[in-house]
Amino acid sequence: MQTISENKCFGGIQGVYSHASEACGCDMTFGLFLPEEAADQPVPVLWYLSGLTCTHENAMVKAGAQGWAAEAGIALVFPDTSPRGEAVANDEAYDLGQGAGFYVNATQDPWALNYQMWDYVTEELPAIVTANFAVDEERQAISGHSMGGHGALTMAMRLPGRFRSVSAFAPIAHPAQSDWGRKQFAAYLGSDETQWAAHDATLLMRRLGFDGPVLVDQGSKDQFIDLLKPEALAQAMMERRQNGQVRMQPGYDHSYFFVSTFMPDHIGFHAAALFA
Amino acid sequence: MQTISENKCFGGIQGVYSHASEACGCDMTFGLFLPEEAADQPVPVLWYLSGLTCTHENAMVKAGAQGWAAEAGIALVFPDTSPRGEAVANDEAYDLGQGAGFYVNATQDPWALNYQMWDYVTEELPAIVTANFAVDEERQAISGHSMGGHGALTMAMRLPGRFRSVSAFAPIAHPAQSDWGRKQFAAYLGSDETQWAAHDATLLMRRLGFDGPVLVDQGSKDQFIDLLKPEALAQAMMERRQNGQVRMQPGYDHSYFFVSTFMPDHIGFHAAALFA
Repeated sequence: MQTISENKCFGGIQGVYSHASEACGCDMTFGLFLPEEAADQPVPVLWYLSGLTCTHENAMVKAGAQGWAAEAGIALVFPDTSPRGEAVANDEAYDLGQGAGFYVNATQDPWALNYQMWDYVTEELPAIVTANFAVDEERQAISGHSMGGHGALTMAMRLPGRFRSVSAFAPIAHPAQSDWGRKQFAAYLGSDETQWAAHDATLLMRRLGFDGPVLVDQGSKDQFIDLLKPEALAQAMMERRQNGQVRMQPGYDHSYFFVSTFMPDHIGFHAAALFA
Repeated sequence: MQTISENKCFGGIQGVYSHASEACGCDMTFGLFLPEEAADQPVPVLWYLSGLTCTHENAMVKAGAQGWAAEAGIALVFPDTSPRGEAVANDEAYDLGQGAGFYVNATQDPWALNYQMWDYVTEELPAIVTANFAVDEERQAISGHSMGGHGALTMAMRLPGRFRSVSAFAPIAHPAQSDWGRKQFAAYLGSDETQWAAHDATLLMRRLGFDGPVLVDQGSKDQFIDLLKPEALAQAMMERRQNGQVRMQPGYDHSYFFVSTFMPDHIGFHAAALFA
């Protein structure tokens, strides 16, 4: 693991690190915020998964999360959204290939060689983070925006016991029925739609649910809302009687201005679960 | 109008009053809490509609609302849930007739003569309240529980401009598709289901929505949840991009122990709108 940068931030450290990834077969970069308390003892950790076109950096510089995390005494991890590099398969479209890993393990060529983002985010990176930093793997939570909200919700439901709470900002909530999902799942996972169900938050909510609280925020003026399908997830959460809440925030769009506005609510929500 | 009782309560007055009702053709009784501030000036008012089998009294004594209303400086009105008296049509079932008016104007015999609860709650009683008490009709909000949540949501959507905010505890959210609704609508409104749509919160949400914030709380262990259908309303709210939130509260049932737990949230929610 190599340190790219470390900056003091709200009394703690905002670091950027890179490492050779076995899962992705390339070098991967991630951001990590450690609050001041981590100097003395392992702290709880909130994973934040980013959306389409993002790297590890977007949320790290635009979400305004560190101040609230410092106040709560929580670490933040910002993984990248796909494998990277000239040797890694790509596509001209912004929503396929690099920057658009969709948090799945690809089974189809040419993607399967590097696009193993499920394993990377759920196995390889957690091992690296817990081995190198003072974070408490018994107290983890997960959040994300858009494609990252999709990743957060699907990981939380499919890894019971791993995360105490899950939240999402404008998640891609029903990708198996959206143009943000069908194209990518067909490319990465193949045309057998039964393979897609394990990566659809609405379908997972119907089948599994989550053993903890769920918070979903959605802006009413989100320019991509028809692709996100919050109504499907809301219905599934209520049908399941899922501990949680869905909030339609009037006037907000899909940007980080929306994410940063509700970040204090989300950090507070996770802190309540992590310090319970 | 006759004063039945007045008790000092959280620095204000909890009163119970009765009056001859033109709409209902019988004497009607209601509860009214006025905070201390009403001695000096008109105060905002929150209408609270009760559920099946309730009178004006249940919420008044069990919801724990007055303390929070006093803190916020808001009046509370607790109407009855149906016409009353030996001369008024009734049914042996708990969910039809007296105590079960469903906040509609009945058109069918034998109910039409007295069961005009929509007009009573939206026209006659507001006129009486504003004529006799220091409440500000420009600053009104509405809430309710179960059948009363149904009443609150339908009134808020069908009377645009009247209420600044609406909330509901475990509302009957889709009565046109529930045994809590179909039986009563058939009895009160007749078998033409097109007449029912004006009294179904989910259908109204799809067609009209509400020009202000909506808060819905539902207990996950509510023994009547299959009759309430929160999933239908949640889906409709999200499809409409309705300003609002739906919360599934784990472990809570349908009782006033649930209502009182989240009453401070609801009063705070309405206070934010009423004092905006």
